[in-house]
Amino acid sequence: MKAITAAESFSTAGKHEASSRVVRVAVAGATGYAGLELLRLLARHPQARVTHLLSSGRDGKKEFPIEDSHPSLRGKFSAPCQPLSVEALPPSEVDMVFLATPHQTALEIAPRLLERNLRVVDLSAAFRLKDAAAYPRWYGFEHDAPAELEEAVYGLTELNAEDIRKARLVANPGCYATSVILALAPAVERGLLDINAGVISDSKSGASGAGRGVSEKLHFVEVNENCRAYGLFNHRHVPEMLQALNLAEKDFTFTPHLLPITRGILSTIYVRLAKSHTHEEVVALYNDFYAGAPFVRVLGSGVPEIQSVAQTNFTDIGFSLNSDGVRMIIVSALDNLTKGAAGQAIQNMNLMYGFAEGTALT
Amino acid sequence: MKAITAAESFSTAGKHEASSRVVRVAVAGATGYAGLELLRLLARHPQARVTHLLSSGRDGKKEFPIEDSHPSLRGKFSAPCQPLSVEALPPSEVDMVFLATPHQTALEIAPRLLERNLRVVDLSAAFRLKDAAAYPRWYGFEHDAPAELEEAVYGLTELNAEDIRKARLVANPGCYATSVILALAPAVERGLLDINAGVISDSKSGASGAGRGVSEKLHFVEVNENCRAYGLFNHRHVPEMLQALNLAEKDFTFTPHLLPITRGILSTIYVRLAKSHTHEEVVALYNDFYAGAPFVRVLGSGVPEIQSVAQTNFTDIGFSLNSDGVRMIIVSALDNLTKGAAGQAIQNMNLMYGFAEGTALT
Amino acid sequence: MKAITAAESFSTAGKHEASSRVVRVAVAGATGYAGLELLRLLARHPQARVTHLLSSGRDGKKEFPIEDSHPSLRGKFSAPCQPLSVEALPPSEVDMVFLATPHQTALEIAPRLLERNLRVVDLSAAFRLKDAAAYPRWYGFEHDAPAELEEAVYGLTELNAEDIRKARLVANPGCYATSVILALAPAVERGLLDINAGVISDSKSGASGAGRGVSEKLHFVEVNENCRAYGLFNHRHVPEMLQALNLAEKDFTFTPHLLPITRGILSTIYVRLAKSHTHEEVVALYNDFYAGAPFVRVLGSGVPEIQSVAQTNFTDIGFSLNSDGVRMIIVSALDNLTKGAAGQAIQNMNLMYGFAEGTALT
Amino acid sequence: MKAITAAESFSTAGKHEASSRVVRVAVAGATGYAGLELLRLLARHPQARVTHLLSSGRDGKKEFPIEDSHPSLRGKFSAPCQPLSVEALPPSEVDMVFLATPHQTALEIAPRLLERNLRVVDLSAAFRLKDAAAYPRWYGFEHDAPAELEEAVYGLTELNAEDIRKARLVANPGCYATSVILALAPAVERGLLDINAGVISDSKSGASGAGRGVSEKLHFVEVNENCRAYGLFNHRHVPEMLQALNLAEKDFTFTPHLLPITRGILSTIYVRLAKSHTHEEVVALYNDFYAGAPFVRVLGSGVPEIQSVAQTNFTDIGFSLNSDGVRMIIVSALDNLTKGAAGQAIQNMNLMYGFAEGTALT
Repeated sequence: MKAITAAESFSTAGKHEASSRVVRVAVAGATGYAGLELLRLLARHPQARVTHLLSSGRDGKKEFPIEDSHPSLRGKFSAPCQPLSVEALPPSEVDMVFLATPHQTALEIAPRLLERNLRVVDLSAAFRLKDAAAYPRWYGFEHDAPAELEEAVYGLTELNAEDIRKARLVANPGCYATSVILALAPAVERGLLDINAGVISDSKSGASGAGRGVSEKLHFVEVNENCRAYGLFNHRHVPEMLQALNLAEKDFTFTPHLLPITRGILSTIYVRLAKSHTHEEVVALYNDFYAGAPFVRVLGSGVPEIQSVAQTNFTDIGFSLNSDGVRMIIVSALDNLTKGAAGQAIQNMNLMYGFAEGTALT
Repeated sequence: MKAITAAESFSTAGKHEASSRVVRVAVAGATGYAGLELLRLLARHPQARVTHLLSSGRDGKKEFPIEDSHPSLRGKFSAPCQPLSVEALPPSEVDMVFLATPHQTALEIAPRLLERNLRVVDLSAAFRLKDAAAYPRWYGFEHDAPAELEEAVYGLTELNAEDIRKARLVANPGCYATSVILALAPAVERGLLDINAGVISDSKSGASGAGRGVSEKLHFVEVNENCRAYGLFNHRHVPEMLQALNLAEKDFTFTPHLLPITRGILSTIYVRLAKSHTHEEVVALYNDFYAGAPFVRVLGSGVPEIQSVAQTNFTDIGFSLNSDGVRMIIVSALDNLTKGAAGQAIQNMNLMYGFAEGTALT
Repeated sequence: MKAITAAESFSTAGKHEASSRVVRVAVAGATGYAGLELLRLLARHPQARVTHLLSSGRDGKKEFPIEDSHPSLRGKFSAPCQPLSVEALPPSEVDMVFLATPHQTALEIAPRLLERNLRVVDLSAAFRLKDAAAYPRWYGFEHDAPAELEEAVYGLTELNAEDIRKARLVANPGCYATSVILALAPAVERGLLDINAGVISDSKSGASGAGRGVSEKLHFVEVNENCRAYGLFNHRHVPEMLQALNLAEKDFTFTPHLLPITRGILSTIYVRLAKSHTHEEVVALYNDFYAGAPFVRVLGSGVPEIQSVAQTNFTDIGFSLNSDGVRMIIVSALDNLTKGAAGQAIQNMNLMYGFAEGTALT
Repeated sequence: MKAITAAESFSTAGKHEASSRVVRVAVAGATGYAGLELLRLLARHPQARVTHLLSSGRDGKKEFPIEDSHPSLRGKFSAPCQPLSVEALPPSEVDMVFLATPHQTALEIAPRLLERNLRVVDLSAAFRLKDAAAYPRWYGFEHDAPAELEEAVYGLTELNAEDIRKARLVANPGCYATSVILALAPAVERGLLDINAGVISDSKSGASGAGRGVSEKLHFVEVNENCRAYGLFNHRHVPEMLQALNLAEKDFTFTPHLLPITRGILSTIYVRLAKSHTHEEVVALYNDFYAGAPFVRVLGSGVPEIQSVAQTNFTDIGFSLNSDGVRMIIVSALDNLTKGAAGQAIQNMNLMYGFAEGTALT
């Protein structure tokens, strides 16, 4: 367990100021890649104390040291990884829970955690889509927690900060969705685009985005020296993007690709502007939109690339306009495990508990 | 030198049938990656004999064993690599020359080789664009060989086979251009597309496509665990594509990306059809168009990926249609060093000399 | 099925000369990586015709086109992949069988194939160790086919060519074993080494050496940007090496490592010479030993590396001597799927049927 | 420039306690990979303020924003990168200098910085070897600063902490040297080894260890899908290792290899023990030796691998003993840019200024 001494937990810390408070967090799904990244970041968070590690087991064991799963964490957490259950998380010991579990596990457990007055940041998709009826089509299961779905705040930090601060349940966005929504939101909201001409995002992701579950498609030999498109016209992150950007399915095409890298997403987005603009005008509009957002970097020149954001919580966004000033390519880059998952989850936690937004993330 | 005994050269082999003839070839630019691939393939070509290896030098040496540059060729070619000059290629010893040199070297030397009655397959861009006036914009030099430009045949084998057979000078297509043109030609020529809606190719290439010249941008550490777009709205292969497909610049967007792999190009191409079609109709149209083309594989289902074509001369093409039957994604995959360069060059040679089209390539 | 017309099979071709004969081969374990490499090489072998593809199934299907497993083979083999059984291989249709199956499958099936007068090249370890009693320790099963074990010829082509020509059952060597044995055999057999000082091989292999079976350890994210040692003092290829080199376990240390590449093995081998030698003397001794071996390249200078042998059947061997002329490092490089598995298997087939040793391999 | 407000610099902070002090640091060689890692770590160091960035220029420019060289640092440092000179570093503005420059640049400039009462951590080899006469052989230049060589403290933090605290000039160890010395020091110092039997380190490093200078050997295509040994019996880090471990050249063999990864070194070290030991005894001895060393993790079981230490300042060390208890393999893993360069440099700075040893490193 992280060696933080003399720290009072949140539930009893009402009279302390924010900077001295410590939130006690549990990480469910600790053995996955998002779980690892959560733990890596939480280990350096001065106001978070990891109290519980939970998972569905490993190598047939139900309880084991987390370093059996993540050797890089050797020596950092002494608590064992335990089976996930609501009972394992007494409110007297925990303030909030990160769910980095399968969708249906999150769907089942999140409402019960809320009942116990625990706050939840859910990294699965279980509470992302406001329309419960969309779940059977996109995720293959019926959604049976409509009240919590209604309550959940979509945790795209740059767009929903105010609601996130007060939220009990934050639906942490998908990695591709974060990449595309951040790149398009200013243009869409400020009416820059000719939407009818269509919006196309050709996105490329590293293999950690597919999670740690084994499959032939993720075998080293199959991914290495390869690149492939998948989920054509049919990827699960599409409804999230449409919902956040208020776009119609007929106007939006999203194609994900698997890259032979571990971390990172690059989205190359093709749009037409409603009228001709200069590069400077577009940059200015984005800079204005993201003023005060510490983790979006709008590039005044050049094109974002994955290496510039890998292992960071930044999203870089850049632009190229054709000489007509109408055809535009927006390129965004982020790290799928950080801003695309665990980093944004902690950014959400920071907002929820009044910590500085970038704590543990810069 | 390749140990082929008792073979007569082409210039004196008029009375032999094709299968017993041997063409004597020189490879200029032997130390590059396209040069290596040419040599690798020629070493197993039963009707080609490599007589001369030429380069601009290496490590300050003008003459050296080719294995100093390409250790994998150890023991395969005994002739030394020599400085490139027309004089080094007497017509009594050589029938044809592959130019895998910089554009301007090819521009200067190809006409002089033709004068000597040598046939030329030029892997540079020096003779690809029919409009000489396009060279200053796209390549930064004036084109001063208009007659040869007029004469040159664009060596996209599947489109121009008849002209290639008779050609003295073949302009071997660019790697990206091959990837995009093969994917679009049937749809364009058969009027399948709504061109006004725009055609977008988001293409991804391995690092060998950038050649062997050293630069920080190609340093292992810069390419590895990265992906980046470049040449936005401004890549040199665009005019080739427009010319071959008879498209206008305003309707076509091409974005190349650098992948952390050695070989391969994947193009994800976004189009709208003029009217609704089924997947089967599109597949049938492409199969019809490429009937008899041994190196294009039209996929009846599934999506092409780089691994399926790496180290081969194949181009795989597949399709995904949206439920409206109008929005379509075409995906093509090829190996930039084989079908995108040296393989296609040899395919061209095979046509020029009446060899079976797939000799040394299957 | 490969379109080879007008070819007679071996069993009835007694009166034909070797060059016109065609051997009919079955490939069992066709869906693995060694299976793919066998098929890729056999597709270009003018004297082999693949008649049967066998596997234990894929995605729950028992019979399926091989391109479902290996898209790169699209269009090359029309025969479906079928369940492996002796009955599926009638001697009237097949002459020989490549077994690229699990060890115990090979152990069970090989004797029954021999009974039917089929010849077998077994790529598993089932018949490599002459001492049946070694199997429980190293492979975890009892060996119940001692007669066939006795009969089997260890298919290290450069060492056992004469026996291989006559063999009915060839035990194709392990990939690491080939790498180490070829590097050490001349030094050991010619008495060059001070064996008592110990022989250490630090070997590094690409991930295809571990096969296609999925496991977390072979997940892209676990292998990429990593290198790890495994099997310390305890790797299964050790007894093969000891047996072939006639070394005692106490004098030999072998450590395999997993590299983040697909193909290739590099072995860095540390020895002491019995007395001082020059580099030239060592090179001369190795050249003499491997005179006539078309797939071993002894380097007169420089150090072998994986790229020089990838996708080839070559083993490159080089040397560095300390200034004392006594401490020596031998470096060998080969492609684990070619010379380390399928290539050597075909080299063995070529010897067994009197074909040129390098057919389909150069 | 890093936005640290209200911090007093060291030179005037005598009466403050350590935790409130801020040291003003310059980074010379800021455009290289070690420079980038220094800046990345310093950006999160609460007690260091980067005041000057220095380099030999970039793209012909002498002064430029550091993000032109390292886009990932976008927005983190406002000071421009300037030409390196002693005059550019007035003692009124700087307390210490990290030299991540070529050896001879460091040799020339370090003495002049010391004259100005600046403290120096030199990441080059200019002050590592106590014997000035060794420089011509290993580094190809005469050493003309014997007094500073005498004064310099070898900055292997775990071995020399006391001297480092007081040092004005710290010679930061080489990356391979750190990997090997940490793995062997306990065994050597406690007399565990039979040195006469020889010590062999087979080490493997990622490509960032070779620096950012361009060369064909570091071109992506040459490194990718490859592994090669180099510097056999002749690597520059050998004399450092011999000096630190008090070994004779005749007893020690070191072979570096280039891995197709960006970061990390794995050393597989072969030794014989003077007498038989158990695994537990060895682990206990190492644990005792490294008690209190926060960045060495001695593994009680398992084998270190690169991923467990990448992007961290840890060195992991593990052991495997043969059944005789005499032959032993020690495996160590570290990140060549962190513990092998910039991380250790900052660890040294932390000691020099009385900061907590792990500041900015955990």
